[in-house]
Amino acid sequence: MSNLFGEFFGTMVLIIFGCGVVANVLLKKSKGENSGWIVITTGWAIAVIMGVFAAVSTGAPQADINPAVTLAKTFMGVYTGAQAAATMLAQLCGGIVGGAVAWLAYLPHWELTEDKGLKLAVFCTGPAVRNSTANLLCEIIGTTMLVTVIFCIFAKPVGGVAPGFGPYLVGMLVWGLGLSLGGPTGYAINPARDLGPRIAHAILPIAGKGDSDWGYSWIPVVGPFIGGALAFAIGKAVGII
Amino acid sequence: MSNLFGEFFGTMVLIIFGCGVVANVLLKKSKGENSGWIVITTGWAIAVIMGVFAAVSTGAPQADINPAVTLAKTFMGVYTGAQAAATMLAQLCGGIVGGAVAWLAYLPHWELTEDKGLKLAVFCTGPAVRNSTANLLCEIIGTTMLVTVIFCIFAKPVGGVAPGFGPYLVGMLVWGLGLSLGGPTGYAINPARDLGPRIAHAILPIAGKGDSDWGYSWIPVVGPFIGGALAFAIGKAVGII
Amino acid sequence: MSNLFGEFFGTMVLIIFGCGVVANVLLKKSKGENSGWIVITTGWAIAVIMGVFAAVSTGAPQADINPAVTLAKTFMGVYTGAQAAATMLAQLCGGIVGGAVAWLAYLPHWELTEDKGLKLAVFCTGPAVRNSTANLLCEIIGTTMLVTVIFCIFAKPVGGVAPGFGPYLVGMLVWGLGLSLGGPTGYAINPARDLGPRIAHAILPIAGKGDSDWGYSWIPVVGPFIGGALAFAIGKAVGII
Amino acid sequence: MSNLFGEFFGTMVLIIFGCGVVANVLLKKSKGENSGWIVITTGWAIAVIMGVFAAVSTGAPQADINPAVTLAKTFMGVYTGAQAAATMLAQLCGGIVGGAVAWLAYLPHWELTEDKGLKLAVFCTGPAVRNSTANLLCEIIGTTMLVTVIFCIFAKPVGGVAPGFGPYLVGMLVWGLGLSLGGPTGYAINPARDLGPRIAHAILPIAGKGDSDWGYSWIPVVGPFIGGALAFAIGKAVGII
Repeated sequence: MSNLFGEFFGTMVLIIFGCGVVANVLLKKSKGENSGWIVITTGWAIAVIMGVFAAVSTGAPQADINPAVTLAKTFMGVYTGAQAAATMLAQLCGGIVGGAVAWLAYLPHWELTEDKGLKLAVFCTGPAVRNSTANLLCEIIGTTMLVTVIFCIFAKPVGGVAPGFGPYLVGMLVWGLGLSLGGPTGYAINPARDLGPRIAHAILPIAGKGDSDWGYSWIPVVGPFIGGALAFAIGKAVGII
Repeated sequence: MSNLFGEFFGTMVLIIFGCGVVANVLLKKSKGENSGWIVITTGWAIAVIMGVFAAVSTGAPQADINPAVTLAKTFMGVYTGAQAAATMLAQLCGGIVGGAVAWLAYLPHWELTEDKGLKLAVFCTGPAVRNSTANLLCEIIGTTMLVTVIFCIFAKPVGGVAPGFGPYLVGMLVWGLGLSLGGPTGYAINPARDLGPRIAHAILPIAGKGDSDWGYSWIPVVGPFIGGALAFAIGKAVGII
Repeated sequence: MSNLFGEFFGTMVLIIFGCGVVANVLLKKSKGENSGWIVITTGWAIAVIMGVFAAVSTGAPQADINPAVTLAKTFMGVYTGAQAAATMLAQLCGGIVGGAVAWLAYLPHWELTEDKGLKLAVFCTGPAVRNSTANLLCEIIGTTMLVTVIFCIFAKPVGGVAPGFGPYLVGMLVWGLGLSLGGPTGYAINPARDLGPRIAHAILPIAGKGDSDWGYSWIPVVGPFIGGALAFAIGKAVGII
Repeated sequence: MSNLFGEFFGTMVLIIFGCGVVANVLLKKSKGENSGWIVITTGWAIAVIMGVFAAVSTGAPQADINPAVTLAKTFMGVYTGAQAAATMLAQLCGGIVGGAVAWLAYLPHWELTEDKGLKLAVFCTGPAVRNSTANLLCEIIGTTMLVTVIFCIFAKPVGGVAPGFGPYLVGMLVWGLGLSLGGPTGYAINPARDLGPRIAHAILPIAGKGDSDWGYSWIPVVGPFIGGALAFAIGKAVGII
């Protein structure tokens, strides 16, 4: 039970910071308006670091805060199927609540922002070029890299990292993923990160909001799950898990 | 007594770096003029790291350098009411002196900068959109996140961080807060950070200065205090303090 | 054998992140388009950190992921000539595969990008000002700095770094090399980083690609090798290896 | 003797990276042209980290690489007067050689850059607004902060930092100094950093160079020395040394 709360709480922290930084860069009159990709990616990197500390400290030592990671660990035998499903649901709920908190923090800026697409982009990802196959492939590659390199960092031959440095390195990894592989789809690489706030966007009374682009919503869910599964396969094949 | 000096000294260092980076970005002819949100937030992040080392090394092992943190720790029993009040006053004095030092460092740039609002912004925060309820809410959310995640980083289940890495992680957290939640109000998230330099602005002979916007000044004091109290409540509820 | 796989795998991870970040900044309609030198250099820095963890975890404790480093270590007696050649070949293969993965991740963006030079620049370096002597000199200086400072970080008098902090510091070093010495030639400083993806560019069916600038290709191979040899000589002379 | 070489070598590495990043941002057709203050300050931060590792590894455990730091340590009794003078001379020589290496790395870009002031700025600092008193004051404040906070980081009550994390934190400190206090004078905060490359500028055959602005050159020497002395006084007064 404590584990579920930790995953909920950690994912909520992740999404408050994560959706927050996109709001800062995209919403009109925000102090960080148009401050660019370096701001967005740095914000998400720190979001991950803090989300992991939040999860670990509140009872989730695995601190996945990402259903794609949870899926890979389920294949590894860390979770039973029922535990995995509950964990993912907890993460999703964290994503919804996190999106709502980010919305509250930027309350006066929604009606000042005309572009409905920008408002949606605060909550969830969208493709730079809409192409289901290519977008799915990009999310698969990004998530495969995410989960595989997490396995690498914590693999036996590395010999462990200094206390507290693990979450930091995972944050660096996500910084790199955003900088390097985030260009085509905005790097969801986490079903809860995308679907959770997308649900928040759909249900919150956001001033002048448009639709929640449900047509695209399966890609940042299915892609990361495939990536997590692939990372499990790669991890097994190369002997790091 | 040593504790009070450390809190004074640490907050002074925090504010020298913090107000300094805003001066660099906002004042005319400064080498960092218009270098953007990434510069401001990185500067404040490092300000926190160095402020914490300054406080710890000069006698304040708690190294709050923020009355909102001190409030939460008072609820936790770390300070008596009188100790808390004295600590906060020391922090406030550090903020005043720090603002004065930043003013001195940028001495020739004040008269070159016509905009009175920019000059005030070097010292204290102001809202992107003036709306008391929303601005207060934003400061509450930001400070709640600050104090709660500090509790998370140092919570028992995390198992401790490497020596010297704690202040660094708190700096990363403040980097994230600026990037993610700083857009609407400029993230005071610390009463001494805002009120201290605001007092400095009021009393220093700054070339061509305007008023100190006292009408707004209660928000970055009250908001962070509420946030600190909320973080205590959350911390207790989730078992991290 | 495991060592060869690790070098292949680590270099592949390096190049996926490295070519990825250049694609993000240069290709049309990418979300990171024109986000500048800070994005490119940060991306490559993290690419190195993650590449090192990938190499170590999959069997290559040396984690060179760079033939210039391998050359210096061969002079040091770490590898026989045959081992060195095999290691370098593994690194080159990693570079080719890494370039291909980056190409896949950005699949819809190649045909949207008219400039053939930009497309090539995603894969391999090119000079800002074409001048063989000066370009070679710049690559020699950059690689000499890279390998020499790596020797410094891990030299006896330093007394070791915290677990997991070594790869991070090497990433910081490469961040610095890009920021400081990357201006004239784009800092290949690694033959596999340049030749590997250049081969990928030549053989992949990239939409609307131009030639692979083979006339320049020897400089980012020969320069780094000379730099690696020089670093060995300097390292011996100053007593850090 | 080994100590002198280490200080020479470490300062040389500092200046290669430091002057290099300014060249990248200021010189025409460089890949990092106009990439801004975040690039310059990040480059100098890493320059310090790598300079410290270079100094420690080659025989200088103090790794001052800055005569202002050496001055403060001389007052502390770490050096005799003669040792201090020799150390500072070694640092200055490192600065000269470092400036020359940076010049070589950017060889084709000097004649492409018309502005003689930009070319000088690669080597040494200049004021945003020329005002001897204010400029001197700014260098004093910056260097006082540098040396005082170094004392804080390594002070007894902090309890030490993780292996290898000390140089990193000093680099973060210099990042902060550039971001926060670098606006008015370009933060020399180190006599060898300014005078060394200024001498290099004077003696090297730089294409189309102007004068070396000797009229200003005393400020980034005298200011940092006063700052180092002040930091010693503050450090003694607050009990961190």
